[in-house]
Amino acid sequence: MALTAEHWPITAALLQSTDEHDADAASWSATLGQVRRAGFRHVDLTDSWVRPGDLEESRQDELLAVLRDSGLRAPAIAVTRKSVVDPERGSENLAYDHRTIDVAARLGAKVVCLGLHRPLTPAQREALWFWTVDGPRDSDDPEVRALAVRRFQDLGRHAAEVGVLLSLELYEDTYLGTAASAVRLVEEIGMPEVGLCPDVGNLIRLHRPVEHWRDLYAATLPYANYWQAKSYQRDEHPDRGWLMAVPAPLESGIINHREVVAMALDAGFQGIICTEHYGGDGLSVCAANREYLRRILPENGDYRLGTSRVTQPVL
Amino acid sequence: MALTAEHWPITAALLQSTDEHDADAASWSATLGQVRRAGFRHVDLTDSWVRPGDLEESRQDELLAVLRDSGLRAPAIAVTRKSVVDPERGSENLAYDHRTIDVAARLGAKVVCLGLHRPLTPAQREALWFWTVDGPRDSDDPEVRALAVRRFQDLGRHAAEVGVLLSLELYEDTYLGTAASAVRLVEEIGMPEVGLCPDVGNLIRLHRPVEHWRDLYAATLPYANYWQAKSYQRDEHPDRGWLMAVPAPLESGIINHREVVAMALDAGFQGIICTEHYGGDGLSVCAANREYLRRILPENGDYRLGTSRVTQPVL
Amino acid sequence: MALTAEHWPITAALLQSTDEHDADAASWSATLGQVRRAGFRHVDLTDSWVRPGDLEESRQDELLAVLRDSGLRAPAIAVTRKSVVDPERGSENLAYDHRTIDVAARLGAKVVCLGLHRPLTPAQREALWFWTVDGPRDSDDPEVRALAVRRFQDLGRHAAEVGVLLSLELYEDTYLGTAASAVRLVEEIGMPEVGLCPDVGNLIRLHRPVEHWRDLYAATLPYANYWQAKSYQRDEHPDRGWLMAVPAPLESGIINHREVVAMALDAGFQGIICTEHYGGDGLSVCAANREYLRRILPENGDYRLGTSRVTQPVL
Repeated sequence: MALTAEHWPITAALLQSTDEHDADAASWSATLGQVRRAGFRHVDLTDSWVRPGDLEESRQDELLAVLRDSGLRAPAIAVTRKSVVDPERGSENLAYDHRTIDVAARLGAKVVCLGLHRPLTPAQREALWFWTVDGPRDSDDPEVRALAVRRFQDLGRHAAEVGVLLSLELYEDTYLGTAASAVRLVEEIGMPEVGLCPDVGNLIRLHRPVEHWRDLYAATLPYANYWQAKSYQRDEHPDRGWLMAVPAPLESGIINHREVVAMALDAGFQGIICTEHYGGDGLSVCAANREYLRRILPENGDYRLGTSRVTQPVL
Repeated sequence: MALTAEHWPITAALLQSTDEHDADAASWSATLGQVRRAGFRHVDLTDSWVRPGDLEESRQDELLAVLRDSGLRAPAIAVTRKSVVDPERGSENLAYDHRTIDVAARLGAKVVCLGLHRPLTPAQREALWFWTVDGPRDSDDPEVRALAVRRFQDLGRHAAEVGVLLSLELYEDTYLGTAASAVRLVEEIGMPEVGLCPDVGNLIRLHRPVEHWRDLYAATLPYANYWQAKSYQRDEHPDRGWLMAVPAPLESGIINHREVVAMALDAGFQGIICTEHYGGDGLSVCAANREYLRRILPENGDYRLGTSRVTQPVL
Repeated sequence: MALTAEHWPITAALLQSTDEHDADAASWSATLGQVRRAGFRHVDLTDSWVRPGDLEESRQDELLAVLRDSGLRAPAIAVTRKSVVDPERGSENLAYDHRTIDVAARLGAKVVCLGLHRPLTPAQREALWFWTVDGPRDSDDPEVRALAVRRFQDLGRHAAEVGVLLSLELYEDTYLGTAASAVRLVEEIGMPEVGLCPDVGNLIRLHRPVEHWRDLYAATLPYANYWQAKSYQRDEHPDRGWLMAVPAPLESGIINHREVVAMALDAGFQGIICTEHYGGDGLSVCAANREYLRRILPENGDYRLGTSRVTQPVL
């Protein structure tokens, strides 16, 4: 039965929550209570908030209890800035990802989102928007790329064993930084349990020429098994080089999500949609984004659904 | 009886629909179904979607049937980028406009919106926003201007005969490109059936110094018989020449539509309001714009209505 | 009993109304009727609309009657651009402030908001946004600063006598232009009846490097007794110097008001929140801002409330 607007799992990211990994259950409850009050029934366990892969079992149980008491389900875990080919912490991050996959299975999450972007640099942290400053670039060395493929295959096998999917997030200057490179990477990995997270917002906000959002989605949606959705407003002056990009609600940013949703269904997408928004009161904007998505997702389940190239979660 | 918030015809433009001129009724129905689901009761037949003037009678009837089944009325047809003084296709466009007027009458549309802007140039089509690149300019030759007047008079006589109004859209670098030039043009035409469409959004988005929206509306609203409403957010740095402009919802762009609505009533405006929005999910933003307009249009019909200089449609 | 979302007084500023000081009661009623129709129960008497301190008693009574008939309460008066250390009109402004305090008491207003910013310069009035052009700067002469302190103390004593609070608004290039200077000023004044209005929007919109909104609020909220809330969207290009800032709804601008509300409660804030917005239909955006604030203010009054360094109004 194809997903409909009413039942499609739409999560809130916890991008703007402070690190509460070591906080007590009451603090978690306060944070998740805000998510619930904002109208969400689903939440993404963004690991800048709490790192599920680093929680002892008793704390995992505590997290499950808080989620249940808050009236929330957590169908996805998003791992942030822990690249498996980080020159300094790649192996450590790989081990962390393995732990995260096990915890995901234990918590009942269907998807773990991974990426190749590394921690923000000091210059990025000082900028008004971190994406206006260039960060680390993945190596041109084919050995490093091959290592990324092997490590994601290793993680993919583990995920498949425990019934979890992996989703790799688009991010500039990594092997997942262009439509072509991302598609090539996921094809090299070559496992139905490893797909893409078409977080096109990561790319269209850059202060440089960018691929068109339509091209990015067209290339990556056939591999999508999870979708972090956020948008931006953008202006460019062709001759003089001025350029600006600022976070915008999904409805009024430059991406036509009505069109993207149609493309996603054509591509067989039936994954979780995670609403994200940087700057300001991201949770409130995410709530508005959720309501907007419910207005444009299909009302009935009788629509024509394409065939995805990767496994879709059972939600 | 003066129009009120509840009953004022507010249409959705179909700017972002692909060309479905040759599509079948099922495709038309899917497109118009989205307009209806977005809460509209009225739609503008933007001719970048379907060219009513190029439809055979049987297809016109099909269109009427689809509209009726979709629960929509189409009180206006908007002709786009088909200038009657286009150096290459002016005569052809004139003939097309005549056909469009006849079809408008047959379909029960009250207004046909015409303009002097020409097709986008390749450079405009490549830009993020086409208006950041200069397009063609109307000739300084008074003969060409006189030709525009004569052709609009010719079209106006035809429209008057079949009970349709013509509305001429503001657009930069044409004879309708400034408040003064647009008013002069419509006065030279000198027919109550030919008025202006004060699409001020076309002008305030330019990457150059622009007339103030208040001055543009003040000059043109007395001649308005139809109104394409859209807005932009804008910033300028006076000394350094930076300048940006991006599409914005009517409520939060730089034009004060509360004030403009009051000016419009003072000027005797009782025409269709067509909501437009470029970029992103224009239809959803248009729906939000419609709701916004209903919040600020007069609740009761007992307001003081000025006397327009042109004929208002009977809606 | 601590304030809750439902009952927190949230006013509309009248920034965009024209000067109706000499208008008749019917005009006042039309303006306030719009505020009421926009869903407000409270309005700020912004003195660019009507100057309460310059109204005769009979006109004050007329204003009270119009407010009552409109279903509105006016808990605050905002005095704009009448600095007590204006080189030309400082003494005159001081006398006006004294009159305003008396009228506030008579009208039942709890707070009078004052500032040190002066009338817009011709260059500011010509700019798209006045804040992109530098205005007058307060003197570096310590004597002038001391005069500001003495005059605010004088006004504070008067306010305390009649049961009104004074709130001093952050504004660039005045003694209230940085977090540190504003806090120092209010500490030098040293009276519980004289606090700050953390109008951080005034500062984050500037076309120059700005203090972070979080730092501005952290420093000033402990002294806040009234809060003009408005927001902006902003982009900066670190290397090339491009910079833009435009008015934005509270929910989607760069300030995280969810976080700021939590900081305000921690700091013991229980004052009026005045919604402001420049450009476009400010009243409608203020109404959206009010609804947003009610979604994030505490639902129940059992929250932990900090201890403010200044007296909070009894609302």
